[in-house]
Amino acid sequence: MITEFDTIAAISTAQGEGAIGIVRLSGDEAIAIASHLYIGKQPLAEVASHSIVYGHITDGTNKVEEAMISVMRAPRTFTREDVIEINCHGGLVSVNRVLQLALKHGARLAEPGEFTKRAFLNGRIDLSQAEGVMDLIRAKTDRAMNVALGQLEGRLSKKISVLRQELLETVAHVEVNIDYPEYDAEAMTQDLMVDKVGFVIKEVDKLLETASQGKILREGLATAIIGRPNVGKSSLMNSLVHENKAIVTDIPGTTRDTLEEYVNVRGVPLRLVDTAGIRETEDIVEKLGVERSRKALREADLILLVLNHGEELSKEDEALFEAVAGMNAIIIVNKTDTPRKIDLDRVQELAGARPLVTTAFIEDKGIDELETAIANLFFEGAIEGEDATYVSNTRHIALLEQAKQTAQDALEASESGMPIDLIQIDVTRTWELLGEIIGDSVQESLIDQLFSQFCLGK
Amino acid sequence: MITEFDTIAAISTAQGEGAIGIVRLSGDEAIAIASHLYIGKQPLAEVASHSIVYGHITDGTNKVEEAMISVMRAPRTFTREDVIEINCHGGLVSVNRVLQLALKHGARLAEPGEFTKRAFLNGRIDLSQAEGVMDLIRAKTDRAMNVALGQLEGRLSKKISVLRQELLETVAHVEVNIDYPEYDAEAMTQDLMVDKVGFVIKEVDKLLETASQGKILREGLATAIIGRPNVGKSSLMNSLVHENKAIVTDIPGTTRDTLEEYVNVRGVPLRLVDTAGIRETEDIVEKLGVERSRKALREADLILLVLNHGEELSKEDEALFEAVAGMNAIIIVNKTDTPRKIDLDRVQELAGARPLVTTAFIEDKGIDELETAIANLFFEGAIEGEDATYVSNTRHIALLEQAKQTAQDALEASESGMPIDLIQIDVTRTWELLGEIIGDSVQESLIDQLFSQFCLGK
Repeated sequence: MITEFDTIAAISTAQGEGAIGIVRLSGDEAIAIASHLYIGKQPLAEVASHSIVYGHITDGTNKVEEAMISVMRAPRTFTREDVIEINCHGGLVSVNRVLQLALKHGARLAEPGEFTKRAFLNGRIDLSQAEGVMDLIRAKTDRAMNVALGQLEGRLSKKISVLRQELLETVAHVEVNIDYPEYDAEAMTQDLMVDKVGFVIKEVDKLLETASQGKILREGLATAIIGRPNVGKSSLMNSLVHENKAIVTDIPGTTRDTLEEYVNVRGVPLRLVDTAGIRETEDIVEKLGVERSRKALREADLILLVLNHGEELSKEDEALFEAVAGMNAIIIVNKTDTPRKIDLDRVQELAGARPLVTTAFIEDKGIDELETAIANLFFEGAIEGEDATYVSNTRHIALLEQAKQTAQDALEASESGMPIDLIQIDVTRTWELLGEIIGDSVQESLIDQLFSQFCLGK
Repeated sequence: MITEFDTIAAISTAQGEGAIGIVRLSGDEAIAIASHLYIGKQPLAEVASHSIVYGHITDGTNKVEEAMISVMRAPRTFTREDVIEINCHGGLVSVNRVLQLALKHGARLAEPGEFTKRAFLNGRIDLSQAEGVMDLIRAKTDRAMNVALGQLEGRLSKKISVLRQELLETVAHVEVNIDYPEYDAEAMTQDLMVDKVGFVIKEVDKLLETASQGKILREGLATAIIGRPNVGKSSLMNSLVHENKAIVTDIPGTTRDTLEEYVNVRGVPLRLVDTAGIRETEDIVEKLGVERSRKALREADLILLVLNHGEELSKEDEALFEAVAGMNAIIIVNKTDTPRKIDLDRVQELAGARPLVTTAFIEDKGIDELETAIANLFFEGAIEGEDATYVSNTRHIALLEQAKQTAQDALEASESGMPIDLIQIDVTRTWELLGEIIGDSVQESLIDQLFSQFCLGK
């Protein structure tokens, strides 16, 4: 089923000086609107689907751009509607001018994510797949990309569908039992319920087990580097950035003040948190009293606490250990190229079960060990198979947790011999909650909100 | 003639979170290399030219992306070679991964501008057209875009070719006269020379007249806003940015510290120069002694000097007038919403022939007048016809000036009755210099240097 919508247009490439910029149109009028802007050998209406024609964009009087036009007719398109892609010379002015002309001729400026939303509303993809599209764009590492791609390919959707099918069959079975109690014993129904619901709980648990790793891959690991002045924090930062590719990204909808920096460590995206307050001060203990610094620490998923091999453990160092008590931390004893003055036994004692790595960043020593420690801390060293299904989306995790709860309610009720039609309410609710993950029975406002997080033109 | 090259690949969309990212390949092996990465219904080798197929990108084991592949066979392509465009989900990781796979399968990473360079080397466009491509991408306003597009369409090339043809005919004529002196009188040759060379000088002059405007359109007008504290400099900045769209752009090859901000005023791109040193200080006179501030002033093409209508003209104000003596400046008397205390006669005297505008930014008054003053100062109010040819490129301007000089040498030599074969040397040199604009007889090192200024993937 294709729903009828107006025709939307947007710039679908990243803003900036690029070689190629794309203005995309989707909707019944896409080809007609593009025809108004287009001068070329052949009318666009006569161009075969999925082909590319060369021509110029005109404002009615003058040629304003040279362009390649891709014509793709419904339904074999991203949105399942007619799609036109105007592929022009990149740059700031060019694509904007072409977009303005498309709007002048009747297209509406697309909202963020509206193309993908149409793919969803037109039934080409479900909601978790649409969310995979967004994650693909935001992915910071190959691993994160694989998770997103798996989701886009419908891997999570399939798992969810299997579980919902189980629940549906159970409910159907119960219905039959209620309607025709003579065909089956109540006891058998209870057994079936325990069996089926138990299976769903186990599977949901398996998915939830991937959640923390999935979230890290998706959102990155907020990482704070702390330590006294001159222990080598900047060298650590440089080593991480140097060994791996630093990724700088705009956060959509914000100004350029909030650029974020990511470092890809063995496929784990580390987001380097600005703990300047802590990092740059001379008097750490005093600074730890400052709210801003404490907050940066509290928000970190990972602390890299750097100590100096060539100096005795100071009061400040001990204060840092206290400040990160109970947090994920890796203790780094740096500057092993200098004669040891630090009390390693005491450091080991303070570190406790937390990983302890010795390094000499200046000589490029210990970086590998540190990266291994980081990967181990969050992935226990296991490289997931390429086809692993990760749950990475906060919305999905919340729904899975709720579904697990209602399933458990149903299970307990079954085991304690509650009436079957009461249990059925919990089972149905579990089925609904799982359905929300793939966009079945989701409220429109939620859908709007979800897609508004997309970037423009997608 | 198509020259044979290896196959190159690059990301052709701007870096960042975009909906669509494109990896472009060009060369004999483009389709073969893409075939290694592609899983789809139909082998790419069998796909018709200029058509789009849906499929997946594979790393040999796993699908790593969903993609639309555009297949365009030589010679109807941007480079005149076989071109493949892999249109995938945007984002930082995705396109990079696809590019890496293309490189793994034998493509070479393209140098900046190498696609356009091939279009040039394969004879599809000449050098000034190639430079137009770069200007298109960099254009900051519609006007600048029109200039670049005109250049890409070959408008400048045609003018240059006409002039070169004139010179060539003159030279040919002279050759005939030298070889067969009996057919023509020496005097007539001199007349012809004066006539033809005079025409070329006039035409070159016309082009050079457009140069200062062309350069402004191309590069923007470095604009400094100066004035004492609290006269309304920030309000002016905000008004300009608010009324017009501010354009923020990365300068290729530099870090993000050097973002530039452009404001489009009636098609004139103003680049707002950071004169923080002057703008924020309390003691301007002292600050003007600071080298950094003076430098910022000296580099400005336009000064907006803001005075306060509600205060008496101070020693600092007079010092500012002195500092900008001899520069393009617009004098702005702001805060006309406050009772006048400033001596307008004295201001007029200090302003001299420079435009004087009264404003009340807080009430949005006078912005229009200011913008008109800016446009008038550089374009004398004239809106150029859409088909005007502007010379905007520093390289072209330098060559035109040199060509004018050698043409004048030839003219003077003709008029003073120098031997015709000596004059011919100057004429031939003029012909060569004009040829360098369109890329005829240009050294390879220059070509390399020109294209290296392009962005990657173009």
